Amino acid sequence: MMDGGSGASPDSFALAPWSAAHLASVEAALSRWVTTDAPAGQLHGAPADLVQAMRYAVLDGGKRLRPLLVLAACEAVRGHAGAALRAACAVELIHAYSLVHDDMPCMDNDVLRRGKPTVHVQFGEASALLAGDALQALAFELLTPEDEGIAPDIQARLCRLLARAAGSAGMAGGQAIDLASVGQPLSEHQLRDMHQRKTGALLQGSVLMGAACGPTDAQQWEALSDFGAAIGLAFQVVDDILDVTADSATLGKTAGKDALADKPTYVSVLGLDRSRRYADDLLQAARAALLRARLADPSALRALAHMVVDRSH
Amino acid sequence: MMDGGSGASPDSFALAPWSAAHLASVEAALSRWVTTDAPAGQLHGAPADLVQAMRYAVLDGGKRLRPLLVLAACEAVRGHAGAALRAACAVELIHAYSLVHDDMPCMDNDVLRRGKPTVHVQFGEASALLAGDALQALAFELLTPEDEGIAPDIQARLCRLLARAAGSAGMAGGQAIDLASVGQPLSEHQLRDMHQRKTGALLQGSVLMGAACGPTDAQQWEALSDFGAAIGLAFQVVDDILDVTADSATLGKTAGKDALADKPTYVSVLGLDRSRRYADDLLQAARAALLRARLADPSALRALAHMVVDRSH
Repeated sequence: MMDGGSGASPDSFALAPWSAAHLASVEAALSRWVTTDAPAGQLHGAPADLVQAMRYAVLDGGKRLRPLLVLAACEAVRGHAGAALRAACAVELIHAYSLVHDDMPCMDNDVLRRGKPTVHVQFGEASALLAGDALQALAFELLTPEDEGIAPDIQARLCRLLARAAGSAGMAGGQAIDLASVGQPLSEHQLRDMHQRKTGALLQGSVLMGAACGPTDAQQWEALSDFGAAIGLAFQVVDDILDVTADSATLGKTAGKDALADKPTYVSVLGLDRSRRYADDLLQAARAALLRARLADPSALRALAHMVVDRSH
Repeated sequence: MMDGGSGASPDSFALAPWSAAHLASVEAALSRWVTTDAPAGQLHGAPADLVQAMRYAVLDGGKRLRPLLVLAACEAVRGHAGAALRAACAVELIHAYSLVHDDMPCMDNDVLRRGKPTVHVQFGEASALLAGDALQALAFELLTPEDEGIAPDIQARLCRLLARAAGSAGMAGGQAIDLASVGQPLSEHQLRDMHQRKTGALLQGSVLMGAACGPTDAQQWEALSDFGAAIGLAFQVVDDILDVTADSATLGKTAGKDALADKPTYVSVLGLDRSRRYADDLLQAARAALLRARLADPSALRALAHMVVDRSH
């Protein structure tokens, strides 16, 4: 078993079975919590058609990278597994709501997501708007259970981290910059700022929420924050690369649409080769931060960082 | 000084100066918290145009009934004033975001709100969507400050109450039922269920969030919950009455629009006279619940209940 100081190849950690087991927990929990069925359903009494749109937005789709980061970070600090499962689902609900709203006609006007019609195409615009709103509220409800033995200070910290990551200084702020930047030349600095908010904040938040489920000292927290920032940015750089190098079927969404929409991307600002080198640099920065964090078991976090950069979709 | 058991007229409590003082605190806090200005601004680093839309949606408008209910309930249980001010602002941010989204073209498509152009008219649809999303996140951020001496269990309880009130079994669920009910005949039971969610849940949540800032026993909590439910429903019955009896200038929004939109209302289901009697019955139920709560000082809550029913806009 390698440790944080070995710098060993991530190949010695078997990510596939780890991911499969954790993804199964997340899928089961999401299906159990986003439902009107009593007694497990949080949404008992909610209108069935709204919940149907919420389930459509959340279930059976996506890489679940954010939940996996939460669970990996929690394991790395030997934290509270029950709290981490709730945090993993909460962060995925925020991600899902942002996609629903982002796809709407007044934003990106996209009709295809994860190979399926987008929520507003399937259920109508008003239902998409409300389903997104309700998913955001549900995320905070999941983080604050009444009777599950999760300490109130963990609950409060998780809400604080998620609200900051999702809000106007984080994801929603990044979306606003993205919106204002169509057809505008952005400097590399401006592009990085946009992506650190739009995508990076929630990925970094996922790492920190996992870490908040257990004990950390200030140095570990800062190192994990650096790790999350590096992979958050790497994710977006790779996304921009895939937008021009992959096809729609592989991506499960419309390829080449950023270029068509005249949106600035890492590829348009840095070119393809420099973008690839930048992604690799960020991976090395993430690995270095993990070493600084001196974690009990950083294997899954390190393997996920490699997956972010090496993925094909 | 009257107490909960006296059944005295609310006239002996001077609501106007109480409201004026508390409204001033709420306005100042909202202006301080919904800003990019350091150091007080929560949104330091957020894009200026997004924050501008958020401020437009929140500041200088509205009756602030929900914040006043939070503050009155906190005083009634002699709770933590700092926590209650944050809760008061958080619940108003949720209310404001719901209005921004509700006014959008895919929902009610309204152009006038509080006598001003609606947010999407002023800033565009995409900005309205994002401003609403960011306001919801900010509400939960306000409830979870890092260093203000508000106990984590209060922070977690406030998040739980707000998330439930705002989500798919509460406000967002009520909006979904409202959306599906246009042109549909609703029974009185269905109409009540819709309004208890759409408007009632957040008003009741305001009372409970105020109460969560201090100590209560189970019986007090249940009585305050009943009080909140009664005034929540009364508010909507009176809203429906005012929609047909007041003019747009007095309301600060388009009068008669529910009837034009063929939406079921209390007036369309019960008629005007029975709606008025129902509002009075609900006020009496609210007063009875307050008596059962045996509060140290229920004066402001009782006066607010009267204001809800006797208001002209």
